[in-house]
Amino acid sequence: MQRSNAPIVAVVGGGVCSAQEATAAEAVGRRLAEAGAILICGGLGGVMAAACRGARSAGGLTIGVLPGFHASEANPYVDIPIVTGMGEARNVVIVRTAWAVIAVGGEFGTLSEIAFALKLGRPVVGLETWELAKAGRPSDAIIKAKTPDEAVRLALDGVKT
Amino acid sequence: MQRSNAPIVAVVGGGVCSAQEATAAEAVGRRLAEAGAILICGGLGGVMAAACRGARSAGGLTIGVLPGFHASEANPYVDIPIVTGMGEARNVVIVRTAWAVIAVGGEFGTLSEIAFALKLGRPVVGLETWELAKAGRPSDAIIKAKTPDEAVRLALDGVKT
Amino acid sequence: MQRSNAPIVAVVGGGVCSAQEATAAEAVGRRLAEAGAILICGGLGGVMAAACRGARSAGGLTIGVLPGFHASEANPYVDIPIVTGMGEARNVVIVRTAWAVIAVGGEFGTLSEIAFALKLGRPVVGLETWELAKAGRPSDAIIKAKTPDEAVRLALDGVKT
Amino acid sequence: MQRSNAPIVAVVGGGVCSAQEATAAEAVGRRLAEAGAILICGGLGGVMAAACRGARSAGGLTIGVLPGFHASEANPYVDIPIVTGMGEARNVVIVRTAWAVIAVGGEFGTLSEIAFALKLGRPVVGLETWELAKAGRPSDAIIKAKTPDEAVRLALDGVKT
Repeated sequence: MQRSNAPIVAVVGGGVCSAQEATAAEAVGRRLAEAGAILICGGLGGVMAAACRGARSAGGLTIGVLPGFHASEANPYVDIPIVTGMGEARNVVIVRTAWAVIAVGGEFGTLSEIAFALKLGRPVVGLETWELAKAGRPSDAIIKAKTPDEAVRLALDGVKT
Repeated sequence: MQRSNAPIVAVVGGGVCSAQEATAAEAVGRRLAEAGAILICGGLGGVMAAACRGARSAGGLTIGVLPGFHASEANPYVDIPIVTGMGEARNVVIVRTAWAVIAVGGEFGTLSEIAFALKLGRPVVGLETWELAKAGRPSDAIIKAKTPDEAVRLALDGVKT
Repeated sequence: MQRSNAPIVAVVGGGVCSAQEATAAEAVGRRLAEAGAILICGGLGGVMAAACRGARSAGGLTIGVLPGFHASEANPYVDIPIVTGMGEARNVVIVRTAWAVIAVGGEFGTLSEIAFALKLGRPVVGLETWELAKAGRPSDAIIKAKTPDEAVRLALDGVKT
Repeated sequence: MQRSNAPIVAVVGGGVCSAQEATAAEAVGRRLAEAGAILICGGLGGVMAAACRGARSAGGLTIGVLPGFHASEANPYVDIPIVTGMGEARNVVIVRTAWAVIAVGGEFGTLSEIAFALKLGRPVVGLETWELAKAGRPSDAIIKAKTPDEAVRLALDGVKT
């Protein structure tokens, strides 16, 4: 029961992912829960399910903001399924609700969440995710982390400043 | 499998309301929490705040799906603020997420939530709310309740069938 | 300054409708086009298709704001298919874009559009549609029309005030 | 009056832009109109206004999908203002409605539109816009154009395949 001022942190990534990404996402979820954060994600499989599984293993609360019409689409580790029926537009809801975003791997949907988060000024931490450049100059908008622990630390540091 | 199988019930009503409506909404929120349900609402004042206050007084979990851009718009009894930035379109998210809807009083925004809920086949219980008719024939789509207790009972019965 | 100052008027109603409703909707669409208005609707069948057919028969422009993922869902009389992928939340877009709303018959989806329009202060004209009451007192929020001609006249009068 | 099978092409870019970007966007809009395409964009200033101005100068039709609550937010070259009230979630509507996307410069909002378009499988042509990479390997998902003419040609070729 979250009565407190618990930070809400999004974990974004592919609905299908590699074993290595799943391991990283699960560690991110677990560390977030251990730090007292609420996890929000898109509620489906892959990185989302791994992060929720990790959070739940540490007693954390998980929110899944679903694109479709039914709560049953949520992965089994989602505590609160938010059913939007709004397709990819639900990505905006995930990012607006989150205080910070951690991206693990990911494809174009993840890139849209990273972009929205940067647009809204949320800290975005990346683990093996997209790299951005413009006119040949790399962007440092995505904060690079090397490990799940570092990703969580950087994300929570971001929301404290 | 969600952590618990707690039903999620929406309480909808005006952002400004009468003292009598606030009393009813608070009782609805309290009874929902006592019955183990999670409360979802639009997260603002009036009936929404009263229902959240009631739910929290009984140890329940409250979700506020906000129309605007900032979690700070939520009433102080919201545990989980979902920030949509989608204006009135957020009403659809409230209703899709809920297993049943209880309407207390309410103006046109509430009517839109009732309509969406009926469209989606969710049970809608009304306490002193809108009455519908077509071609002079009253509609019985909104289940009328006389008391907050009855409203909660009818809503939870609805989701069990 | 838009190219013309043509008013945009929504016609809302069931995706399936009676022959009588289709005739009325077609007449509404035709009269709107003759009056120089742009027609906006949900882009699907029933009342929406009939209204678009009527508008096109008089050389009018028709916009269909679709709930699904593909422009091919639009009825064949839609000139501009807006593809939202947002399900019923697209109803809000129809109503926000319209200067006035004409409801022909309709079920709960139509009621949600009426409710949003009233919430936003748009004039709503009804032809054999929902009737509202609260606490036993009928509401006059929906302007009743007896004929398609009258409905269009009342809607366009509404946007001029 | 678009009765035909005219392609709808999105032009996306910053709401504030350089003179060079405005010149490019205007040329893109003009060429799209000359090719018989309908222009869709976010309806605001900068690249959006320049593209609409170009399209209108060649007699094209322009659609502006606005994030806010009022049609008056549209730039003066928008013919059809679609008022969503959904903030950045309107980016999804722009991209879903478009058959192809041309990005001119742009910041994070533009990146979100590029990402959504790639997610949905729409051809994305870039003029001095974002460059993507993952794990140090450049992505060729965004088709690079050197001139406005080339951008329009590549976009229209994309929708024909």
